[in-house]
Amino acid sequence: MADAQMPPAHPFDDDKLKEECGVFGVVGVTDAANFVALGLHALQHRGQEAGGIVSYHPDHGFNSARRFGYVRDNFTKQSLMETLPGDLAIGHVRYSTAGSKGQTAIRDVQPFFGEFSMGGAAIAHNGNITNADALRRELIERGSIFQSSSDSECIIHLMARSLQRRVPERMQDALRRVEGAFSVVAMTRTKLIGVRDPLGVRPLVLGKIGDEGYALSSETCALDIIGAELVREVEPGEMVVIEGGKVHSHRPFAPAGSRFCIFEHVYFSRPDSILGGRSVYETRRQIGVELAREAPVEADLVCPVPDSGTPAAIGFAHESGIPYGMGIIRNQYMGRTFIEPTEQIRNMGVRLKLNVNRALIEGKRVILVDDSVVRGTTSRKIKEMILDAGAKEVHFRIASPPTAWPCFYGVDTPQREKLLAATMSEDEMRDHLAVDSLKFISLDGLYRAVGEAEGRNKACPQYCDACFSGEYPVTPADMIEKGFEMKAAE
Amino acid sequence: MADAQMPPAHPFDDDKLKEECGVFGVVGVTDAANFVALGLHALQHRGQEAGGIVSYHPDHGFNSARRFGYVRDNFTKQSLMETLPGDLAIGHVRYSTAGSKGQTAIRDVQPFFGEFSMGGAAIAHNGNITNADALRRELIERGSIFQSSSDSECIIHLMARSLQRRVPERMQDALRRVEGAFSVVAMTRTKLIGVRDPLGVRPLVLGKIGDEGYALSSETCALDIIGAELVREVEPGEMVVIEGGKVHSHRPFAPAGSRFCIFEHVYFSRPDSILGGRSVYETRRQIGVELAREAPVEADLVCPVPDSGTPAAIGFAHESGIPYGMGIIRNQYMGRTFIEPTEQIRNMGVRLKLNVNRALIEGKRVILVDDSVVRGTTSRKIKEMILDAGAKEVHFRIASPPTAWPCFYGVDTPQREKLLAATMSEDEMRDHLAVDSLKFISLDGLYRAVGEAEGRNKACPQYCDACFSGEYPVTPADMIEKGFEMKAAE
Amino acid sequence: MADAQMPPAHPFDDDKLKEECGVFGVVGVTDAANFVALGLHALQHRGQEAGGIVSYHPDHGFNSARRFGYVRDNFTKQSLMETLPGDLAIGHVRYSTAGSKGQTAIRDVQPFFGEFSMGGAAIAHNGNITNADALRRELIERGSIFQSSSDSECIIHLMARSLQRRVPERMQDALRRVEGAFSVVAMTRTKLIGVRDPLGVRPLVLGKIGDEGYALSSETCALDIIGAELVREVEPGEMVVIEGGKVHSHRPFAPAGSRFCIFEHVYFSRPDSILGGRSVYETRRQIGVELAREAPVEADLVCPVPDSGTPAAIGFAHESGIPYGMGIIRNQYMGRTFIEPTEQIRNMGVRLKLNVNRALIEGKRVILVDDSVVRGTTSRKIKEMILDAGAKEVHFRIASPPTAWPCFYGVDTPQREKLLAATMSEDEMRDHLAVDSLKFISLDGLYRAVGEAEGRNKACPQYCDACFSGEYPVTPADMIEKGFEMKAAE
Amino acid sequence: MADAQMPPAHPFDDDKLKEECGVFGVVGVTDAANFVALGLHALQHRGQEAGGIVSYHPDHGFNSARRFGYVRDNFTKQSLMETLPGDLAIGHVRYSTAGSKGQTAIRDVQPFFGEFSMGGAAIAHNGNITNADALRRELIERGSIFQSSSDSECIIHLMARSLQRRVPERMQDALRRVEGAFSVVAMTRTKLIGVRDPLGVRPLVLGKIGDEGYALSSETCALDIIGAELVREVEPGEMVVIEGGKVHSHRPFAPAGSRFCIFEHVYFSRPDSILGGRSVYETRRQIGVELAREAPVEADLVCPVPDSGTPAAIGFAHESGIPYGMGIIRNQYMGRTFIEPTEQIRNMGVRLKLNVNRALIEGKRVILVDDSVVRGTTSRKIKEMILDAGAKEVHFRIASPPTAWPCFYGVDTPQREKLLAATMSEDEMRDHLAVDSLKFISLDGLYRAVGEAEGRNKACPQYCDACFSGEYPVTPADMIEKGFEMKAAE
Repeated sequence: MADAQMPPAHPFDDDKLKEECGVFGVVGVTDAANFVALGLHALQHRGQEAGGIVSYHPDHGFNSARRFGYVRDNFTKQSLMETLPGDLAIGHVRYSTAGSKGQTAIRDVQPFFGEFSMGGAAIAHNGNITNADALRRELIERGSIFQSSSDSECIIHLMARSLQRRVPERMQDALRRVEGAFSVVAMTRTKLIGVRDPLGVRPLVLGKIGDEGYALSSETCALDIIGAELVREVEPGEMVVIEGGKVHSHRPFAPAGSRFCIFEHVYFSRPDSILGGRSVYETRRQIGVELAREAPVEADLVCPVPDSGTPAAIGFAHESGIPYGMGIIRNQYMGRTFIEPTEQIRNMGVRLKLNVNRALIEGKRVILVDDSVVRGTTSRKIKEMILDAGAKEVHFRIASPPTAWPCFYGVDTPQREKLLAATMSEDEMRDHLAVDSLKFISLDGLYRAVGEAEGRNKACPQYCDACFSGEYPVTPADMIEKGFEMKAAE
Repeated sequence: MADAQMPPAHPFDDDKLKEECGVFGVVGVTDAANFVALGLHALQHRGQEAGGIVSYHPDHGFNSARRFGYVRDNFTKQSLMETLPGDLAIGHVRYSTAGSKGQTAIRDVQPFFGEFSMGGAAIAHNGNITNADALRRELIERGSIFQSSSDSECIIHLMARSLQRRVPERMQDALRRVEGAFSVVAMTRTKLIGVRDPLGVRPLVLGKIGDEGYALSSETCALDIIGAELVREVEPGEMVVIEGGKVHSHRPFAPAGSRFCIFEHVYFSRPDSILGGRSVYETRRQIGVELAREAPVEADLVCPVPDSGTPAAIGFAHESGIPYGMGIIRNQYMGRTFIEPTEQIRNMGVRLKLNVNRALIEGKRVILVDDSVVRGTTSRKIKEMILDAGAKEVHFRIASPPTAWPCFYGVDTPQREKLLAATMSEDEMRDHLAVDSLKFISLDGLYRAVGEAEGRNKACPQYCDACFSGEYPVTPADMIEKGFEMKAAE
Repeated sequence: MADAQMPPAHPFDDDKLKEECGVFGVVGVTDAANFVALGLHALQHRGQEAGGIVSYHPDHGFNSARRFGYVRDNFTKQSLMETLPGDLAIGHVRYSTAGSKGQTAIRDVQPFFGEFSMGGAAIAHNGNITNADALRRELIERGSIFQSSSDSECIIHLMARSLQRRVPERMQDALRRVEGAFSVVAMTRTKLIGVRDPLGVRPLVLGKIGDEGYALSSETCALDIIGAELVREVEPGEMVVIEGGKVHSHRPFAPAGSRFCIFEHVYFSRPDSILGGRSVYETRRQIGVELAREAPVEADLVCPVPDSGTPAAIGFAHESGIPYGMGIIRNQYMGRTFIEPTEQIRNMGVRLKLNVNRALIEGKRVILVDDSVVRGTTSRKIKEMILDAGAKEVHFRIASPPTAWPCFYGVDTPQREKLLAATMSEDEMRDHLAVDSLKFISLDGLYRAVGEAEGRNKACPQYCDACFSGEYPVTPADMIEKGFEMKAAE
Repeated sequence: MADAQMPPAHPFDDDKLKEECGVFGVVGVTDAANFVALGLHALQHRGQEAGGIVSYHPDHGFNSARRFGYVRDNFTKQSLMETLPGDLAIGHVRYSTAGSKGQTAIRDVQPFFGEFSMGGAAIAHNGNITNADALRRELIERGSIFQSSSDSECIIHLMARSLQRRVPERMQDALRRVEGAFSVVAMTRTKLIGVRDPLGVRPLVLGKIGDEGYALSSETCALDIIGAELVREVEPGEMVVIEGGKVHSHRPFAPAGSRFCIFEHVYFSRPDSILGGRSVYETRRQIGVELAREAPVEADLVCPVPDSGTPAAIGFAHESGIPYGMGIIRNQYMGRTFIEPTEQIRNMGVRLKLNVNRALIEGKRVILVDDSVVRGTTSRKIKEMILDAGAKEVHFRIASPPTAWPCFYGVDTPQREKLLAATMSEDEMRDHLAVDSLKFISLDGLYRAVGEAEGRNKACPQYCDACFSGEYPVTPADMIEKGFEMKAAE
């Protein structure tokens, strides 16, 4: 059932893969919801459509606020934050995730809350459950009533039906039924809980605030904003339960090798975050270095496609010795609120966001460094802008391998047939985009940039790279039922 | 869990009993939601805090919109109504009902919707379930997750857990577990369903729209606004299922004598509605006639307390021969939206709404006819205004017996100790209000006015009059568990 | 120049003449703006489109707030009222008045403010300037820049150009140039000023608040709400200047006989106001009495068209001995905010506001008492509703003479050709409305009801009755220039 | 008089000089207002508080819309843009400018409009009138009524009082009375007009759209967004009148040497704009080169303070050979709407916007390149963040000379005593900020970077550099009257 609600829409930025969620939680600090708001603000790049916070206070019980729009526009107001008292709070930002895409209702905004016979719990989920359809059918059959179209709601219903008394055990019961990728932050009246799926596809880190407080966050950049120190990552397959200033570690799942999402390094995470002990910025710079080695070209200028191509462009320029320059300028006042734009403005598309620095580009052979090519629509427009400005040659260098497969683990990807690399070779793409050259970093090059000196281990890849390789570490059961065809085994 | 949501508040009208809900549904008409919006507008007096509509269209499925505020401010807009397509729709207006009083969340606004294994259903409930606490505990124990604090949500969870395949049977299963007062309007993808509890405490009528359409409504005034004809009342204990232009009647409950709420005649229903075949306006006029007979007094003017005392005042004036006049003028621009008023304005209270027609009142002996006395706070202020305007004498005549007991069947009443008549005799109330005389109509007089020539049948009262008599036809189980003490048997 | 601003619109109440403004001012009380807000709330019936308040505080200077919508929805909030400090304030409510009708901009909302060389002043104007077009042309020619399309803005420009030093003298200079009807409330940093035009067409009264405060108001009902006592009316052609707790009276204009608007008695003013020493309610009741004498008819029920027909219906019933009853019930939740309504809802028109009390009407000969007939569209719909409900006969009795001429003195009237009485005789109107009888009170009868025992003095009418008689006491110069044809002298 | 209006506030970005306005106009294109909206969006960096557009259409006259907030949030909606029809339109974005600083009312938002005896005109003004107080006094004395607190309103009143018949001549009359800096874009029903003050302090360029359209813009980047070609700059002291597809040039002022604002090159203008034939980006890069020559230092990393320090940092890195890296990461979701933030969030200040890239900074000697130092508050916080992240040394290099004097020509500067450089020497500032070194570019170095190979011509400076030198090319008459002390002649 769709709730009559107008979500904000942004018609101009649809040519990127999009991380769909960020999660954050804190315990042991006064006015925990304020910390969560700050953490979510730092994680806003992981989900811009809506956000929610649940807090608990012994005198006021569980309180919740869910809003469409940016964290900074909602969760900074005194009047709203006063309604979220307590020392324990969790939050969530979302892009769109499985379910009613493009027609998100406020009902779909997390955290989700459930009252159980022994107390209540709230959960926030980053990732995607690949057997959610089957679970939902089963739960409805048994009398559960779903309030949202979100796959994540399955978890809370499975918890409600668990015969365990305590929430952590209920959550273990529930998550053992769930397939797919999940980093979950949850809370009871006294506990902050964090879990990662056995493969650890999505990130989750543990931080410490002062002497007694703890935080769980999708990324380390959100620990920085609240002045928390990084303790460590929650490990793949681990559940941490924080209560009374103590962190308890549990291992509810069978052991499995880690398959962290390699695209978090390439694009999703913020450059100032640390993933698996590695600086994201440094990894991206190193991708540029690898790319300059793999695909050199004579040129006058290395120019990033702002903002995500910048670190790789810096690396490329440094390695190649070709000068680095800002040939494309981003309009910093470009936001999301183009509700009901005029036709004329809709057609402006990318020009509203980007302008070419003509004086720098004119007469030059330009290397454009971008993070990825999805549909190719934006790349084409940028190329045209660069040529219009008088560039002599345009060379694209892409800081990721060709994106040829959709992600089913919590990333918003177009259908496979819309992915340029699903239907074209590198040369065909170059001709399609009509540029002088186009080169993607190799999968091995990417693995080297993230620190795997030997490149990708084909037998047992160190990361989830399904979007590049088509090798899915978890079978996407719901999608296969809907007709998705996996890559034939080689 | 409270959702951070600011409901509109009205600090100036707190001295009335308030009907808590109105329900409305139509089937077999194009754009059914528009009809429901009109019907709810006509039922707005039964609930002003919020309203909701659910519609079903074969191509668009179930759609829902729930909003705080008046029907006319929300459910008239093209842009919203377009999101509610289909030939079948139900709606609900609510005041506050059991649950999070004074802190209503949008989650508490009906209709409620549930997806079952064989299809979905939406329900709207007028009344109150007196064993809701026990049912909720049991359902949570078994893994149901409640989304609202509303007692009505129990019904949909009981339906979800029923082993019956079809919705009407599931609803029967559910309602047989429920105690209290309920008039329910529900819908599936093809059926419009109406049910009244075995005692028929709250009203529900069936109407016909053109050749093929049907409507269910709390009151007949909402049939008038859409041009529907009254067919008949849904009977106490009856379930009607309307499908394919046919009305099927079922009797899921054991037979019981009707105990319709007599206060619907006195105050809740609109004067242009027909209850049990009787004109509400005419009944109220007749109450005035009875009152003039029971409690005559020499005076110069019969003046209604606007607007609800008007028909009784007309009857009183007619019977007594004393001239009728509008001694109190209501400001028609008084609404609900005093959010965050200044102290000075808050203190104005009743004067913002009412002004005395000094030229008419001055030097006169005035009979004020009001519908009821609850806390007595407004009566006191009105008396002061009348005396300030130079009235020589003030005589209150009240068109209902003393309200000494709270209602647990869907009416918002103060706690018993706040009811003036719970702690004072008629004479004590007269002294407390400092008026020259104060008379309530007798219970028998009221029964005569509603057409019971012999008055009240003590052995087996024809109506629910618990608020006057303390005789509760359904044991208020939850309230007794919370400490409410029933009247000792006489 | 039109400002892009969406005014609220109400498509359902367009068949009444509408008073276009109410003015209110206070001096000598703490937080004067709060008093003005209350006064404007009581005057809301004189203008519902927008309102404004200007206050002055020695430390904070002049402050202003202007808003679309009801006073109660804007000027009750602490946050807004705090921006309007000081002991001296004036305010204005407006319907639409001359200028950009139907497209009011916030720039057109009064009070207007001007800074002069010796200090500033704010003014609020009720009425209409009949030579505003000519004045505006002249002022623009000399370099004045108009900010609004309001005729009232001329006054402040004329004041700005006066060579007098003090504001009262500047205002006298300005108002001597102005023709038409005006009741003006103005303020400087220390003075509250009230003026009425020489004929006193629009009302203005002086009230006293406590020991040191004074108020000026369009009607006495607004004195009641703030607990002020009526001192007296500001007289036609008088200017009162209140400063330091003293009231000074000036006579800036040549003497002229009073020509107060008789329609204020019939419809515009609130029934609880006192006009010229007469109770409006009592006058209207007396109109009903006169009407019963002039146009008796055999019938079973006297029924007011709510709400404005009520006092006359009470008088008619009393005089005729025919029972009074509420045959038409008004939906009290009908407001203004039908912005962008669906087609279906737009077509409902009057039924959204009114419902027939069928049980009372059925089989009866009904006398409907209404205050006036303008276009006749609403009368027609009401007649149909009454007949649909089963009335045997419908007799209209109208509490004013036929409205055959537009008003140019501050009342919103349709163009002459839209007025039913401009093109039809009483009998033709009866046939047009298809009712059993239709009678208007005679002009002499109306004069008798307002206390002129001899009726209307034809040589020198005691009131302005141009809308009935076509005799305009002030030549409507602008309108004549635009082609309006006055009635030929008899 | 202050209008009760809550302007958006941004407590976190107060340590920059701010350009106060951008102006834009087009003629000869369909739906001109859409072009203006796009142009203003590209000029948003010149004023973020509010924006306005006036358009003219022969059938609909002049129309206007003024809104608080970003252009993209207001002037992109179909519903609003439809109210601004026509082929001719002008617009304005503003920060705050002279007048009611921090309490801007919508009345202060340009363009201003005036109806004159021979037709109307709208004007938009970038700059500041240094004799506005005296002009305002004189105009009020003569009966003009000011509606805003803006200095720019003087121009339209002077125009209204001109005895010339045609608008261009009226404007010349007006601007000859005006002292200070102004780039004005104006329109009549048929003409688009652009004027720059005799010294040409603020920028204004002329562009061509297709065959028949023309545009006037503060910067060339706004020509790019609408696909217009740069024709040339409007010259200092020139008035261009565009009508019927022709551009006419006039010279209303006495000739004077150009004194363009040098800070436009340093900070105000967008890096992709062309000023005086020079690329702003290239100039800024060259400032970095000069700075590296003037103030070299041994270090491991050149890090820009985002975003304005970036081009100079690129130049510094290139010239010095020290690696360039993004040591500070900007949160791209930081916006303006922190209305009523919680205390905790308010205290976060700069951390909400910026995070240190700890992995890059740690253990390094870091050169931070920023565009300017105003109060020094932000510099201090950034230094602390860098040291907290483990930097070994922090060296500030500033891409402008010390800002020691306020600007009176249309830039928002703190009072002189708040400028760090007004009270401290370079060394004192270094100690105050507690950094290892701090160097500003020399005034001569800056002049070299903008292309003056010989540096600054002391006798007759090529630019306005009053904020650095204290040598004001136009006497700030109003400020001197208010007590501002000019620098003593040397």
